[in-house]
Amino acid sequence: MSGNVLGSINLINASLAAKVRFFGFASSVAVYGHGHVPMREDERPVPADSYGNAKLAVERELAVTMQLQGLPYFALRMHNVYGERQNMGDPYRNAVAIFLNQIMRGEPISVYGDGSQIHAFTYAPDIVGTFLTASDQPAAWGQVFNVGSSQTTTVLDMAHTVRTAMGVPDHPIMHLATRDEVHAAYTDNSLARKTLGDWVDTPLAEGLQRTATWAREHGPVEPATSLSIENDTADKPEWFT
Amino acid sequence: MSGNVLGSINLINASLAAKVRFFGFASSVAVYGHGHVPMREDERPVPADSYGNAKLAVERELAVTMQLQGLPYFALRMHNVYGERQNMGDPYRNAVAIFLNQIMRGEPISVYGDGSQIHAFTYAPDIVGTFLTASDQPAAWGQVFNVGSSQTTTVLDMAHTVRTAMGVPDHPIMHLATRDEVHAAYTDNSLARKTLGDWVDTPLAEGLQRTATWAREHGPVEPATSLSIENDTADKPEWFT
Repeated sequence: MSGNVLGSINLINASLAAKVRFFGFASSVAVYGHGHVPMREDERPVPADSYGNAKLAVERELAVTMQLQGLPYFALRMHNVYGERQNMGDPYRNAVAIFLNQIMRGEPISVYGDGSQIHAFTYAPDIVGTFLTASDQPAAWGQVFNVGSSQTTTVLDMAHTVRTAMGVPDHPIMHLATRDEVHAAYTDNSLARKTLGDWVDTPLAEGLQRTATWAREHGPVEPATSLSIENDTADKPEWFT
Repeated sequence: MSGNVLGSINLINASLAAKVRFFGFASSVAVYGHGHVPMREDERPVPADSYGNAKLAVERELAVTMQLQGLPYFALRMHNVYGERQNMGDPYRNAVAIFLNQIMRGEPISVYGDGSQIHAFTYAPDIVGTFLTASDQPAAWGQVFNVGSSQTTTVLDMAHTVRTAMGVPDHPIMHLATRDEVHAAYTDNSLARKTLGDWVDTPLAEGLQRTATWAREHGPVEPATSLSIENDTADKPEWFT
């Protein structure tokens, strides 16, 4: 987690020095860990992995910095965001990108366990507006918001939809051993819809079709083999948060 | 907070690599922030400063690391520990040491506001045993414990007691502007007393007398002027946690 924390703290300090107007933070539903679904902002967050722990620590550092030093902030707890121009080379995060890349590389799609994990895969363009609205709306500052699709899907269903979108409905799926991971991660995002303006959830098949078209134009990438600064040796791979 | 987090994460990773038996973490009641007193372990911790936020993030990283990678841990949330051989040169932390050093340097004792802040100053030798017991007791692993004195004192009363212990009952006290800080920080530490063995709270006057005797032998020190690695530019001084 230290890479994620360190980078964000550096940004907070630089923002104080530069006297920026506010700090908008891309957080994650990973802060909720194994919390009750649909996850709500007033729930006590208990992260279940290093990634969520780092996101929560940065959220709280922003709250402290606003309170003690006057730097406004907002945090959007996003989840499973996918779409054109996403990073295809991260071997750990974002199952949609990993599956698209595996198809293009001729590798089987790798699913942990039976693929019954439930997520709210979110098409990036749907929620970009929430960042813009929160930026312009001081009433949103000092708050955290769940931002994501209200449609839930299992990982296995998503894998099937990716195959279809890529035009290879029979591409092999390989089931790996079950991991110790959060089984269901989706949120009550009514606060964000009310405060930051409502958005339309692009159906998964449609969003994936657009993303697949982009991926085909873009081509496969070599997954990063070395750990990036965001991944400590203590971190386990976290694909789906 | 990043210095505290980074150092601890490095230690966690090194502990995994060295396959140590367990990780005992010195946490702080600062994790509770402005929580209800007496603070209880089952309360939702919301830190009010960078120091407490870093401590909480490390506690949670240890919980995740135990769950996912099998490294046992325990965390003791200590508060206002003082005693012989303490660091006298930290300009930010530990009011007892700062007051002792100010007296020896011929400076007025500096108290924020009216000094009515309530703390449970804890004589270090009283609670050393809890670390040893927790180390040998796997039943304590995976848990956090409040560890501190059950006697509460205001900062101003503590300052008066320090003056007396140092033999200078009329040493001047200077009141600084009130800070945005936690007003009352003491805990329900019955869980630790039950699980890790009970301890006797050395009366403040007695513990301070012993500490003052040591301080007189040791002499004043130059307070550190540059920020240590534990203090980010985003950190405000936190004396009392």
